Order: sequence, then C-alpha cells, then structure tokens
Amino acid sequence: MLSKPKSADRPAGAAEASAGQEMYDFIKRLFPICRSLTGDGVRQTLDIIKEHIPIRIHEVPTGTAVLDWTVPKEWNIRSAYIEDEQGRRIVDFADNNLHVVGYSVPVDKTVTLAELQEHLYSLPDQPDAIPYITSYYKERWGFCLTQRERDALKDGNYRVVIDSDLSDGSLTYAELIVPGQTQEEIFLSTYVCHPSMANNELSGPAVATWLARWILEQPRRYTYRVIFIPETIGAITYLSRHLETMRQKVKAGFNISCVGDDRAYSYLPSRPGNTYADRVALTILESRHPDFIKYSFLDRGSDERQYNAPGVELPVCCIMRSKYGQYPEYHTSLDNLDLVSPAGLEGAYQVFKDCLSLIEVNHTYRIKCLGEPQLGKRGLYPTISTKSSWRESRDMLNFIAYADGHNDLIDISRHINVPVWDLYPIVRKLVDADLLEQIQ
Amino acid sequence: MLSKPKSADRPAGAAEASAGQEMYDFIKRLFPICRSLTGDGVRQTLDIIKEHIPIRIHEVPTGTAVLDWTVPKEWNIRSAYIEDEQGRRIVDFADNNLHVVGYSVPVDKTVTLAELQEHLYSLPDQPDAIPYITSYYKERWGFCLTQRERDALKDGNYRVVIDSDLSDGSLTYAELIVPGQTQEEIFLSTYVCHPSMANNELSGPAVATWLARWILEQPRRYTYRVIFIPETIGAITYLSRHLETMRQKVKAGFNISCVGDDRAYSYLPSRPGNTYADRVALTILESRHPDFIKYSFLDRGSDERQYNAPGVELPVCCIMRSKYGQYPEYHTSLDNLDLVSPAGLEGAYQVFKDCLSLIEVNHTYRIKCLGEPQLGKRGLYPTISTKSSWRESRDMLNFIAYADGHNDLIDISRHINVPVWDLYPIVRKLVDADLLEQIQ
Amino acid sequence: MLSKPKSADRPAGAAEASAGQEMYDFIKRLFPICRSLTGDGVRQTLDIIKEHIPIRIHEVPTGTAVLDWTVPKEWNIRSAYIEDEQGRRIVDFADNNLHVVGYSVPVDKTVTLAELQEHLYSLPDQPDAIPYITSYYKERWGFCLTQRERDALKDGNYRVVIDSDLSDGSLTYAELIVPGQTQEEIFLSTYVCHPSMANNELSGPAVATWLARWILEQPRRYTYRVIFIPETIGAITYLSRHLETMRQKVKAGFNISCVGDDRAYSYLPSRPGNTYADRVALTILESRHPDFIKYSFLDRGSDERQYNAPGVELPVCCIMRSKYGQYPEYHTSLDNLDLVSPAGLEGAYQVFKDCLSLIEVNHTYRIKCLGEPQLGKRGLYPTISTKSSWRESRDMLNFIAYADGHNDLIDISRHINVPVWDLYPIVRKLVDADLLEQIQ
Repeated sequence: MLSKPKSADRPAGAAEASAGQEMYDFIKRLFPICRSLTGDGVRQTLDIIKEHIPIRIHEVPTGTAVLDWTVPKEWNIRSAYIEDEQGRRIVDFADNNLHVVGYSVPVDKTVTLAELQEHLYSLPDQPDAIPYITSYYKERWGFCLTQRERDALKDGNYRVVIDSDLSDGSLTYAELIVPGQTQEEIFLSTYVCHPSMANNELSGPAVATWLARWILEQPRRYTYRVIFIPETIGAITYLSRHLETMRQKVKAGFNISCVGDDRAYSYLPSRPGNTYADRVALTILESRHPDFIKYSFLDRGSDERQYNAPGVELPVCCIMRSKYGQYPEYHTSLDNLDLVSPAGLEGAYQVFKDCLSLIEVNHTYRIKCLGEPQLGKRGLYPTISTKSSWRESRDMLNFIAYADGHNDLIDISRHINVPVWDLYPIVRKLVDADLLEQIQ
Repeated sequence: MLSKPKSADRPAGAAEASAGQEMYDFIKRLFPICRSLTGDGVRQTLDIIKEHIPIRIHEVPTGTAVLDWTVPKEWNIRSAYIEDEQGRRIVDFADNNLHVVGYSVPVDKTVTLAELQEHLYSLPDQPDAIPYITSYYKERWGFCLTQRERDALKDGNYRVVIDSDLSDGSLTYAELIVPGQTQEEIFLSTYVCHPSMANNELSGPAVATWLARWILEQPRRYTYRVIFIPETIGAITYLSRHLETMRQKVKAGFNISCVGDDRAYSYLPSRPGNTYADRVALTILESRHPDFIKYSFLDRGSDERQYNAPGVELPVCCIMRSKYGQYPEYHTSLDNLDLVSPAGLEGAYQVFKDCLSLIEVNHTYRIKCLGEPQLGKRGLYPTISTKSSWRESRDMLNFIAYADGHNDLIDISRHINVPVWDLYPIVRKLVDADLLEQIQ
Repeated sequence: MLSKPKSADRPAGAAEASAGQEMYDFIKRLFPICRSLTGDGVRQTLDIIKEHIPIRIHEVPTGTAVLDWTVPKEWNIRSAYIEDEQGRRIVDFADNNLHVVGYSVPVDKTVTLAELQEHLYSLPDQPDAIPYITSYYKERWGFCLTQRERDALKDGNYRVVIDSDLSDGSLTYAELIVPGQTQEEIFLSTYVCHPSMANNELSGPAVATWLARWILEQPRRYTYRVIFIPETIGAITYLSRHLETMRQKVKAGFNISCVGDDRAYSYLPSRPGNTYADRVALTILESRHPDFIKYSFLDRGSDERQYNAPGVELPVCCIMRSKYGQYPEYHTSLDNLDLVSPAGLEGAYQVFKDCLSLIEVNHTYRIKCLGEPQLGKRGLYPTISTKSSWRESRDMLNFIAYADGHNDLIDISRHINVPVWDLYPIVRKLVDADLLEQIQ
C-alpha cells in the first residue's frame, strides 16, 4: 500500500470515478428498502452487500441480554396508510417509508382528526420535509408527514392502518474479518438501520463496502474488522460479544457515517482525542483538506458513543463529510439521492484509503549511521555546493534528523512540515541505500 | 452538603441576607478595637469571635523561637496625642487608632515642629486619609495624620504623648478544629492584627467566623481547621507548631482576606497554581463570577506567603474581593465601614460556601456498565427519537462518558462545559439508578 | 565568573572595545588566506590562532573512515586565472580566492567561450558579487566571477589555468581543552574552512578564540572543549573520535558561526529545543536582546546538523548575528571586511560571555528555613511597614519563594520575571546570610 496518494485537486482517474459512481448506484439500489433496528429490511440490505464482499451475517435473538441492554423485538412492516372519509390514501408508506414512525405497533381503526393529531409528526420549520421518527423502546404508533400535508387535513374521521409485526425474532448484523500479517486490527464500523435516507445513512455502508473490497485486493500488514450493524443496540450487541478481543487487538478504528455529500469534511475525535486513529485522521485531513471542520467529542452522536464509553475505550474516531445533526436535510426525507453524489462518496472513500494506506506503511524509523550520512556518494545530494544546495535535499535531511527511533511517520511529518505521503519516497530511497532501520 | 447552590443573580434569600447583615454588624462591633500583632486588642477581638464559635485561644510567650523568627514583645496602648502650645489635642488616638504608628514605644515630651516632622506619616496623594503604618521590629514612635492636618501645623512646640507598653508578654491566636468523617483537613486562615480598617481586615475574621458557624451545622466529610492569627508572625508561629500535621492532612486551604467590598472577585493562586484548592476556587469562580480578576502568585502579600514557602508547600490559595494593595483605600483610614457592605460580605461568604460544598461532594466516579447504559428503561431518556432527543439528555450522557474512574467532578465539569453544581443532580440520579460507583 | 554583566546599552568599556577591535584586526589578518576543507590555508589559520591560545593541532590522513564518511584528499592551490587571447588575466585567483571553485582539479588548456561557460559560476541577481562555490566530493574545475565580468566576455578562446593539487594528505583541525573543577564540559565549535569571507566565516574563529582567551583567565567550574574544524567533515571526523566522551560529559554546547555583523541576533535551537544550552541561550537573549530572531531547527545548516543528529544528540544550539543563508551577502565576495565590525563582534562575544557566566554560576538552590526568613533582622527588609514596603524587597522574597531545591537560576528568573543576572547579587546576599543552600 506504500504509494503516494494522488493530490487533492487531481482530475479523478477512471478507476476512482467509477468507484464513486458504483457507490452511488449501490445506494440507489438500497434506497427504497425499509430498514430499521431489526427486520427483513436489514437482511435484504446485508444480502446486497454480500454480493460485493464476503460478510458473515449473524442473528441475535430478541431478549438476549447485551451489556446494559436487551435485544428488542423484531419489527417488520408490510403497509401503512391514512385514509380520509372519501377513501383516499392521503399518507402512504408505499410512497415513502419515512411516513411511519419506526417500530410502530399495528393499528387499524378510525379516529377523529383530533385523535389523529396526537400520532402525527411534522416539521413546521421545514414544511416540505417528512421527519424521521422512531420509538424503539416504547410501544407507539404514529405517522410522519410534511407540515403542508398536515396543515391540509380537514376535520372528520380518518382510517389509520399500520400492518406491522413487533414480535420475538432477532437482531441482524454482519461482519467481515480480513486477515493480515499481524493479529493487530483496524476496525471499521457502519450502520444499516436507517430507512430511505442517503447521507445518513446509506453513504456509510457504501463507503465501508468499497473500502472492504479495496482492502481485500491489497497486500496487508493489519487484520481488518469491518462491521455492518444497527446503530447503538448493534454496537452494544457487538461489543458484548467481542470487547475483550477488540481491546487487545484494535490499533485504530473509524466509525463511518455521513460520507456522501459534497460539502465539508468533518472530524470528530475519540474521547481522549490523541489515539492512533486520531493522529492518522488528523494528519491526512490537515494535509488533504485543511479546511475540514473539527468537532468536539461532545458533538458525538453515533456509535463512537459506545466505542469510547468508559471501560470500552477503543481508539475510534470519525471522519465524515456533513456531520449528522449539522445539515438541514438530516433525519428528513430531504436526505435523499440528490444530497449525495459520486464525487462526494469518492472523496470520503479516498480519505479513508489514505488513512489506511498510512496505517499500513507507518513505522518508527532510525537512521543507521551516526551523524548525517554522506548522501552525495549515494547520488542523493548535489555534488556542487551553491547557496541553495542544502534546500534541495532539505526534506530528506530533515527526515533523517528526526528518524531517531522514536518518531513515526506522522511525528516526522509534523516535525518537518511535509505531508506524510511525501515521506514515502524518502523512506524508500533510504531503505534502498541501507541507511534506514525500522524499529516498530 | 450536596445541594445546588443558588444562582449568582438570585434575589438574596432571607437566611443569607441576614448572614451578610450579621457579618456587617459584627464588623461594626469590632471596628473600634485597637488590634496589633499582639496585645489586648487581639484578645478582645477573639473573645467576641468566641461568642459565635467555640474557638480555643492560645498564648505564645515573647521570645519564643518560631521557625526563623522570634515572638516579639507585646504591645498595649492606652492613649496618645499631639498637643499644641495652646493645649489643644490636634491629633488624638481616641479619635482614630490609626493615628499612632503600630508598636510605638512610649514617649512624653515637647518637641519643635521640625523634630515632630521626623515622626509624622501622611499621604500627599490622599490628603484626607490617615495612613496605616507599623514598626514591629524596630523600636520607634510616630504619629499618622492626614496630609491636610499636617499642612496646617504651624511652627512652635508640640507635646507628644504615647502611653504605651512594649514589654514581654505573649502573642495570641485562636484555633477551631471541627472534626469530620475523615482526618483529611480543609484549612481556613484569617488574621486579626489590623486596627480600625474594614475590608483589610475585619472582613476576613467575619467571613471566617460565619463559615465556621455554617460548617458546624452541616454533616461533613472533612475535618476543618480554622485559625485567627496575627499576620506573618502568627502564621509562622502556627506553622512552627503544626506544620508536620498539616503537611500530612491538609487537602485544600484558603487564606481569607479582603472579602468585604462590592467590587471585583479576585483569585490569587498557590505557588504551583494547580493544587486542589486552586482547582476548586477556579471552577467556582469561573462559573459564578467569570469576570473575576486572576492575579499571579507574584502578587501575593498575605499569609499565603508562608503557606506556600519552600518546604511548607501547603495547598493554599486566596479568593478575595478587592485585593490588598489594589484598591485606593487600602491601608488607610478610608478602608472603613463605608467600604464594606452586607452584600459584599455575603457574596464572598457564598463563594466560600460553594467551594466547601464542592469539596464535600467531590469524588471520582465510574459508570458501572460497559457501553452507554440504557437510560430509557430507567425513565432518564426520551422514548421517542427526534432530531433533538440526544440534546435533551446530553449533560447526563456527557457526564457518563467522562465518569471513567479517573475524572472527579471538577474534571468532568471542565470536559463537558457544565457548571459543577449542575452535575450534583445528575450524580444523584445515576447513584439512585445504581449506575454510578464512587472510586475516590 | 559571578559578576553582573554590563547592561545592554552601556557605553562600551575600554577592555571590551579593544576586544571587538582586536577580533576585527585578527579577521583582517586571516582574511586573505585561501582556506578550504583541507590544505595549507587551514594550517596557516590555525597557526595564527595558536599565537593567541594554546590549541593542539591534529592531522587526519586522507582515506580515514569517519562515521559514514571518508576523509577526502587534501587540496592546495598556488594560482589560477583565465587569460584572454591578448594574454590579459581577466579572472585571477590572486585578486580574490573566491574566483576558483573550491577543490578544483588542475587544468591548463585553451577553450572556446562556449566551453568556458560550462565552468563558470555567477549570480545574475547580484551582478557585482563573486559567488562562493565548492565541489568537494566530485572532481571538477571551475571559476566564479561577477555577472558583470561574465557578461563582458567576448567570443574567442581563453586559456584556463588552475595550478592546484588534489592528492592524499590530511584533514587538519585544532582543539583546546581547558580543564575546570569538574569533568563536565561546555563545548564550543567553530569552523575554519571558508576562504575570504568575513561574517561566514572568520567571525566564528575570532569570537571563539577571544572566548577561549577569556575562559583561560577565569576561575572556572566546568571544563571547556573548544574546536576549530572544517565544517561538516570536520565535525564528523571529530565526533568519530570523541563522541563517546562527549555524550558523557557535555552539558551544553554552542556552534559559533556568523557572529560578526551589526544586524540581528539570531537563535537556532537544538533538535529537542529544550536542552540546557537552549535554556541558557534563551534566557540571555530574551533579557539582553529581546528582538532576537528565533529560527526553527528546520532552518539549520551548519555543524549543529551533526551535533543534533540521531544517536549523537549533544545539547548544542546556535547563537548568531545575521544567520547564514539569511543575509544577501552570504556566500559571496560581498561578505567582506565591510560587513563585519568591531561592535558587531563585540556584541556577540558579550552574549557568549553572558551565557558562559550564567552556566558557571547557575545552581539549584534551596532556602534553608521553613516559612519566609525574617529578612528585617538581617538588614534585608525595611523596618517600617508602609503601603509599598513589600515591593521594595519583592525580588528577594520572590527569589526565596522559588528557591525550593528544584528550580535553578534560569527557572527562577522565568518564574519571577527578573533578568537572571539580577539574581546574582540576591544569591550572594542570601548565601552571606547563611540562608541559602546549593543543591546542584
């Protein structure tokens, strides 16, 4: 994986352009499926992912105790609508699966408008958006609709039908372990529990799937653990089974979410803020996208909450494009296929590839000789000394000055103000000249 | 003591209003007494304090070696005046005890104006103020007067009379030990050696006395050591007897001085600047009075000098209102009963109560489960997930994220940007839910 | 050496004025000599230095392996010129030894202008400057001339003559060890390989020689190691023989270069940036020349490169006036006797004396008593207490507050915001009063 990444402003090459487009097409295919914490929507989604990468799918029965939580009932839904007195379906799950509050219990009755209002959710400030609402842990039923639709409701009776099941079943998740030369692991986590929304959250599974494809194709030093889970309860469930192992093996991890739009790059640190994952993320983002937004751990909201909890304390941070909760379309029907783009997905994919490439090649190095090596006799230094000859070889000599057996490539990059990937050819030349020793 | 302090801008409740007024009345009563390093003025003052709290009064004989110092002779004064040729008392100790240089030796003679001038002290820049001057360690006599009085002196002879004793006796101080559940101690020090001045220094003994009253009424974890001493030599004397014990037991201490006016809150750090006392003082002042003035240890001038000396090194800092040396009335007759106020005293009293309350409740906590606890099933989290549901429970979840067994409440308050007292109800709810474990 | 340095704006005293003038005269005498990495120019230079201080001169044979390098052939030159068709010497080494590329191999032939151009070096942007060019490690011949001279060359044939030897011989360097009370060493390094240039680099040998003279005259605690070497290969050679010893003994070191002009003071840190040498240099420069320029270690370019290399890691930094590479005359014939001045040399000399004086007197101190000492009984504190009496003794009491057995004079100077030399009389008074104990 030791290759210089393409520069940020390069014209997209054929391979990557197609990666962005492929991910976009993949999202388009998954978009209509009604995913939730559990149920067949998750299974369908994982089956499609399995067409691309050899994930293993796991089922965990309802009622299983997982850390402080319990695996909930499984929810499935066939149809749902609100019918007016004329029999017109004025709100229909078939049009948009956000119309039903997630985990709604079955209902089939006629109610007055006043009664109906108590079960309706809309956004006065975004009158054309259907909000995304769930009630996982209290049994409720409800419909979500645009404010305009709601305002148009007239007095009268309405038939409300939700043809759903909420019953014992299981929670479904998938895992891919890609073995490397060492048992040390890089951990990637994304979630598959959101219905028809694109940036949050089909972009995550898309980028994670394409990253896994790329990882499978590369020679690799580390073992990779990639998981596709329902948010929160899935992370809790997964940790209940693998925490011990992960605490021993995971060297760095990333929660992959909100990685599909064309706007900002965003970084949300781990709780300590200085784990290996943070150092990698920051060195790549600072060099490649120096205008990225740096959030606080207090701004967290996804599965990094679990991975950074006391006693769990995995080295996991987040790299995103527009962060959940921070863009207007978030958790509404406006987070749709127009919001994400091939280029947006491609950019995030490239940043993660840069991070993983760095992790693969990063080592602590020590120069083998005392004093500066004589670079000239190896063809690595100008043979004529002019006012500027030192400057020409500056990066290499600066690299050597900090290759003291304590600094890794990230440290050296920071010390000498050179993007980390510009160190890769220097490392190669010095290793070839037998001047550099790898310490860790 | 685990109770949310009232907000800074609350209307003063009946109890505290009377505390401020009571302290002010107490200062009024003590004001006329002529205190000095030693002598009956100190004894009278301590006797009045003893009407409020059960202090023990100690006498240390003149000549006792105390660290690098020696307890000085005891000074008492009955009367003093300057009489002109017409027999008019133009400067009289009976009017204001600042008129005599502290520790003046007896004198009774007639001198010319020229001779007299060598024994007069006034302030050209503050022509209506009598300065406060002492000569503890060299035998002198002198009078202090306003510049206007001095300018009005005419040529001629003057009779000067100081009816004082400077002779073997003792240094007097008082101590109150209030035992708690542990032998660890909180240390409060104030001084009682200043004649008729109000902010510096009757405010200190007043606030210390009322704090001691309050401490005595509370259930308490820590033992409290409260001392009333003459400044410098008293601190030296006290340390010469208790340093070993105090170095073992004192967890935090505050020098209480200049706590009576309505102006700024001030903070003067310990020498290291990061002791437990500093952390407590800063977290309270930053939340309650964010416009407080932060001095340097180089600005010190009171007994914190002794408590922070090399080899003593007690964790002692200062919280003040207008700091000694920084306000124009300092060490003059203008530092009088008009300068301090019930509200000024009350404000300082409240800040110290907040500090001591925090010390009493502060612990290092650890959340008992791995991963986030399921707050919903305990009624601590909204059951419906909307765009904003995370925000509603944010403080509690942030608390949990940092309750890792290493952070105390002060650390957590800083990490999550929440005033420390807003953590108290969170702690209570989590303890009640059996989710929180106290580590230290 | 414990004496208060003169203030920065003092009128130069007779002694120092003559030091500056003496150094300038010394530079004038050395200026015409053609120095290079090796050869008789170096030997002549060292012989003249030996007239002032008892250096020992060492010869290391060509071909000796030194760390990653090999001692090169010795180069000597007698004459060199370019003659036009009329037999006029249009470029002549006899006029300026910069006219020949350093380490040029012998040549004597007639060439066309086109051929000649391939061996000429000039500076289009500085048309009146002869550049300084060397080719130590590849055999070449060449001439350097002003751009104006070059532009005036007409088509035709030119005779080029360089009467030089490049053959087995030795590398010459000198060393002075001045023993002190301890075996711990202060290390001074300067270089003697530059032909006729003044700031870079006859100022370095001049200041180093006069410093050595001064060191020899003083009572001294430390042993001093002063070396005069050719740059880079000389440092490598010296380290190859003495690194083990130096790593054990050297407490602080300075590379002395570019110390002769009247412009800025400059500081270039060691690689870690916080060695003892850095602390000393910074505390002197910040107090004496607060407008000094602070470079990064990335700006390095002289023998600090070797002394700070991984595995060598000596505590060496640089104090300069106008730094190499940063002034327009650098490495050209404009770096001549007009660029340096007696005052410029004298200023740098004084800064180094201040640094060495500080190193000589610096210790970690501890006040002997607990609590503040009673300074009054020792005549070190005013006997009358007024509003301002504390301020008068502030520096001494602040010194005492930080004399805790952990802080050295540099630390205390920083803590209490007082120039380090203002602490010397305080130390003396407290030692005289038997109040201060030297810890390290």
